[in-house]
Amino acid sequence: MENFEFFNPTRILFGKQAEQKIGKLLKKDDIEKVLFVYGKSSIKDIGLYDRVVSSLKKEGIEFIEHGGVKPNPVLSHTKEGITKAKENKVDAILAVGGGSVIDEGKTIAVGAKTDKDIWEYFKRDKVIKKALPVYVILTLAATGSEMNGFAVITNEETKEKLSITSEHIFPKLSILNPELTFTVSPQYQAYAAVDTIAHVIEYYFSGQYCPNLQNRLIETIIKTVMETTEIILDEPQDYNARAEFMWSATLALNGLTRLGIKGGEFPNHMIAHSLGALYDLPHGACLSIVIPAWMRWYKDKNHKQFERFAKEIFNVNSAEEGINNLKVWFKKIGAPVSLRDAGIVESEISRIVENAYNIAVVWDMAQKYSKEVLTEILKNAND
Amino acid sequence: MENFEFFNPTRILFGKQAEQKIGKLLKKDDIEKVLFVYGKSSIKDIGLYDRVVSSLKKEGIEFIEHGGVKPNPVLSHTKEGITKAKENKVDAILAVGGGSVIDEGKTIAVGAKTDKDIWEYFKRDKVIKKALPVYVILTLAATGSEMNGFAVITNEETKEKLSITSEHIFPKLSILNPELTFTVSPQYQAYAAVDTIAHVIEYYFSGQYCPNLQNRLIETIIKTVMETTEIILDEPQDYNARAEFMWSATLALNGLTRLGIKGGEFPNHMIAHSLGALYDLPHGACLSIVIPAWMRWYKDKNHKQFERFAKEIFNVNSAEEGINNLKVWFKKIGAPVSLRDAGIVESEISRIVENAYNIAVVWDMAQKYSKEVLTEILKNAND
Repeated sequence: MENFEFFNPTRILFGKQAEQKIGKLLKKDDIEKVLFVYGKSSIKDIGLYDRVVSSLKKEGIEFIEHGGVKPNPVLSHTKEGITKAKENKVDAILAVGGGSVIDEGKTIAVGAKTDKDIWEYFKRDKVIKKALPVYVILTLAATGSEMNGFAVITNEETKEKLSITSEHIFPKLSILNPELTFTVSPQYQAYAAVDTIAHVIEYYFSGQYCPNLQNRLIETIIKTVMETTEIILDEPQDYNARAEFMWSATLALNGLTRLGIKGGEFPNHMIAHSLGALYDLPHGACLSIVIPAWMRWYKDKNHKQFERFAKEIFNVNSAEEGINNLKVWFKKIGAPVSLRDAGIVESEISRIVENAYNIAVVWDMAQKYSKEVLTEILKNAND
Repeated sequence: MENFEFFNPTRILFGKQAEQKIGKLLKKDDIEKVLFVYGKSSIKDIGLYDRVVSSLKKEGIEFIEHGGVKPNPVLSHTKEGITKAKENKVDAILAVGGGSVIDEGKTIAVGAKTDKDIWEYFKRDKVIKKALPVYVILTLAATGSEMNGFAVITNEETKEKLSITSEHIFPKLSILNPELTFTVSPQYQAYAAVDTIAHVIEYYFSGQYCPNLQNRLIETIIKTVMETTEIILDEPQDYNARAEFMWSATLALNGLTRLGIKGGEFPNHMIAHSLGALYDLPHGACLSIVIPAWMRWYKDKNHKQFERFAKEIFNVNSAEEGINNLKVWFKKIGAPVSLRDAGIVESEISRIVENAYNIAVVWDMAQKYSKEVLTEILKNAND
């Protein structure tokens, strides 16, 4: 096992109707005024907006609204949020939504405490020193943002999708009520499943050594995600399936699954971020296109691990069969598995390569992921 | 899944030579004076004492020594530590050792901040409101105390072994260097394996519903503990085996494995605590005696889960075979599996029953664990 540091101070409140406690919990922490960050109309459609507002009002907590966060949250809207947070001198951010809303909320939390341009932190030119406390009510289980110190934002002018990471942006409290995900569409459930699987397989495959404990933990999450997604697609209101899926998605990216693994990177996310930035596709859809293509390119570099995956997850004996089975499963749940599925023509590949290569430079992965390599992977994604 | 709250703020520093950073890490937290809690001579034998002292001196951190913690830490020695902590106005506790040292350290941390009799907190008559910060260097992986809010102390006068639980006694930082466990004897490694398995199977079996995610997570830990223990007994200096075992023991009782399980109790620990209090046996040895006996008594109350355990862990088909296989494995690694193995004669059973029943009352489990039931379980442990 490699040396590691682990620290995760986020408090999780998990279960039915948990969101109704938000007002009381904020008050207990002496929060008087929050920036209430959310996306489009979905939290109003399911009555969540009203329940949150009522809980805040009951405890006399002031709130400034910052709705309209996009699925791939953009820098301009984030900056508007920072301005609101500063002008209104809020004590905390309350993010109600999925990973996009949480990521924008975290970024506003950093921006509210600095006079620097927030994008400098994404370019890794500045180190985050402080942030407002972030409170979360989760409505879509997928990104794991509810229990980690990451945030991803797209700069729509430069077409860059970049991330920040800091201990200061772990949410202080995240409320996870699986009932709030009953209305997540089959399509978005499929993307969420892909995203969660992606979070655990990046290090599992790209690391040079993965302890058996971590192999088993990762396979536990993959098996649970596949099992529960099939139940959810069949019966969207199955509470236990929604709950196990939700907690699996949180565990997948709260730090635990990568501990002790030697090496390891996030190459699939790197390429998927480019697809997201260029074509504004859902993150999970980008990943289901990239993953089988990357796997075909990478499999001989870590053959034993691909054979293990094939055996443990699909009970088949070859690396190739394992990859094919995963691709078939992605297709079965309704996720795209090629550029063509997403309406992206082959001539676009060079543009995607340029964009992904820029991320590779920022992530210090450009040596391994040259433009030639990226082209080869993306060509695998073409059919 | 049942509703749950999860919060675990302990920072883990895991890896080779990590203990050498202790002085710097304390200084970073503005700690100027610590109570240095440890057990017998073992930390001196392996040179750890000298390394800790040198690291503290280098950073100018004062320390008051409180050595001599017993394997089942006792109230009188703990009270001496509380007096030292108060008289010397220490800022923090530095516990260097295994679970016993950490548990005594945590208890001193609470005692140093109150004028009440510390035993009142164990009798659950008082709620813990504050504690000094606790820093840990772990030398024996087993109890999980390095990353949780529990502590167990034995009142040697009343022969009571009781526990406290509070968010205030989570260690602030725990240093886990697997190399420090190279000298753990085969016997203590066996007890540690039993203890870790015990921590994950209590809820797994005694709960009324265990989500598949949790079943798999628990089985991941059991499989890793069994696999690595066999390697360690064969090759005590196998770093990766020691490391995977160490982290498995931490994960087993840091809160994660019990989340979402319906119901569930710690009956094996309850009875094992009595054996520990009455005969001063190592905790793991008490558990390996109690577990197969309790399983035989309980198996028909949750038959499907016992069959699952048999299949997943030993690839056998009946609950009975699963229990027998576990008992055989305990024996194989050198742990006692009957009262007789520990030199306790049958006529002692009534005395153990009286003691265990008292714990059952404190733990609010006396309705299920009547004296008749406890007698039946202990009779199972007689052969």
